[in-house]
Parts: sequence; structure tokens; C-alpha cells
Amino acid sequence: MAERSSQERPDAPRGAAIAFEDLMPGRTFALGEVEVDREDMLAFARRFDPQPYHLEEEAGRASILGGLAASGWYTVSLWMRAYADGVLADSTSQASPGGTVSWMAPVFPGDVLRFRIEVTGARRSKSKPNLGVVEITGTAARGEDVVMRYDFVGFFGTRATDGA
Amino acid sequence: MAERSSQERPDAPRGAAIAFEDLMPGRTFALGEVEVDREDMLAFARRFDPQPYHLEEEAGRASILGGLAASGWYTVSLWMRAYADGVLADSTSQASPGGTVSWMAPVFPGDVLRFRIEVTGARRSKSKPNLGVVEITGTAARGEDVVMRYDFVGFFGTRATDGA
Repeated sequence: MAERSSQERPDAPRGAAIAFEDLMPGRTFALGEVEVDREDMLAFARRFDPQPYHLEEEAGRASILGGLAASGWYTVSLWMRAYADGVLADSTSQASPGGTVSWMAPVFPGDVLRFRIEVTGARRSKSKPNLGVVEITGTAARGEDVVMRYDFVGFFGTRATDGA
Repeated sequence: MAERSSQERPDAPRGAAIAFEDLMPGRTFALGEVEVDREDMLAFARRFDPQPYHLEEEAGRASILGGLAASGWYTVSLWMRAYADGVLADSTSQASPGGTVSWMAPVFPGDVLRFRIEVTGARRSKSKPNLGVVEITGTAARGEDVVMRYDFVGFFGTRATDGA
């Protein structure tokens, strides 16, 4: 993650590589791959989602998931880390009000997940002209299959603000 | 979390306290309170969401969040743990396809979050008659203010299945 003085946020994003103006609809960012680590996956489940199919092989096999599978929140969190490192770290990001997460297929230890985002919409805030409202689809894919999708809104500072 | 043999899932939910039939629209479950632990919150941010306003006091104060604030995914994960312990652990739950998360206000260390769910809709699956599709709103509240809301679908086995 790039170092950045907090004084640059939110009104002086001049040094950031990615500002609102860079997030045009259709632009995609490849965010790398991660192999799902069994112990890390289990540690997350023990702490935040201790359901049997996230903790035990046998319970996973007997469940609708078909095997010991990651908590959906773990998969989102892995995607979030890739998004934070690959986009937000050097951006004018001003947080997010939320979005819709879809888990299409279970994720298993050893799976290699490929993360990306695509910008699907962008507009300037009416109430805050130095803020942009960006619609983004984030995905985690295993091979050709998208296993998780997150459609969300992100707020990003503009480069050219009123009075700049 | 109640112990349960995996053989009881998904076709023999007789022993579970909460099955599809118990999740009538309007039913609510109080899921207890948690005080946000600063170190736990920071550990999550370092691992999954290392943005400056989730890691550093100064960056938090300078940001739109107004202070060192939790990753939204941490808040959801705390809610998930309360939901897993208070509902899913002794239920016929068959996982979830996803939902929509909304973060209305930042969450800070020391905040006491009160978790609950409310059932907002329920129907039997057409393709799988021993499965119910339940619409649920989960919330995290600080005092009277809802700071996080998660509207989602959960799948739950029925008690009375075809052939039972």
C-alpha cells in the first residue's frame, strides 16, 4: 500500500493514481490471484462464521455445499484485500455505502481465486461536487467460473474540484 | 454452538430448534450485543481491508468517516457471528446465496453493537419441496441508530418433507 499523508484526504487527491475521473464505465482492473489457504479459511470461520460446513470436512460433504467450504464472508474479504491493494491504496477513495453480494458457488481450500473489478457507472455527486459516485462490479473467479460477485457503490474524490 | 451430527443435514432436521416453519414473516430474533474491540478491529483491517482510515487515528479523523473506523466487512462479520450463534447453530440452515449490505454510519472502537434479525418473507422452494427460501433483514444498531443493515436470503430445510 502506498504511503500517503492523511492531509491529502479528502480535499487534495492530487497525488493519487486513481481518482473519480479515472473510473470510466467499462474500465476493468485485474486484482491478481490468491490460493485459498485452508488454515486461514478455518480461522476466519472459527472467529466469524462457525457453521459446521465451514469447519468440518464431514459436515461440508453432507451439506448443500458438497465439501468443507469457505464462509462467503471470507471470500468477500479476500476480494476486499485485493481491491484495497490493487485500487484503493493509491486512490481518492472515500469509503462505500454498501452493495449486493452474490455467492454463486462454494469455495474450497486450495482453490485459486482471480479477482477483478469493472466500473459499470459513474456520476458526480450533486450535493458534493468534489465527490464522484462510482458503480462497480467486483468478482472472484475460479477458472472460467465466477464464484462471487459484489455489485457496489464507491465514493471517490475528483481531481478537479470546485475552486481548484 | 449446538453439537449436531452431520447426518442430520440436510434431510433429517428433526432435532433442530429452528426450521423453515419457524421463520414466519415478522418474527424477530435478538442476537445480543458486542463491544467493538479495537485490537480485533485493527487485526481484521490489517488482514482484509488495510485502508488508512481503518488503520490510523489521524487518517480516520481526516476522512469522511470522522475517526478510526471499522471496515464495513468487520461489522458484517461481527453480525454474522451473532447470527450463527443465535440462529444458525441450532437450525436447518442450508447456506445463503447472498444479499444487500448497507453501511449507514461508521463504527468505532468501543461502540456497543446490538444485533438482530427480522424475517421479512418466506416461501417453499418450487424445485426442492424440502427447502424453504427465507428473506431476512439483519441489523447492527448502536443505541437507537442502525449502523449496518443486511437484507438477504437464507435457505432452510423444512420439518415436514415429502415422504416424511
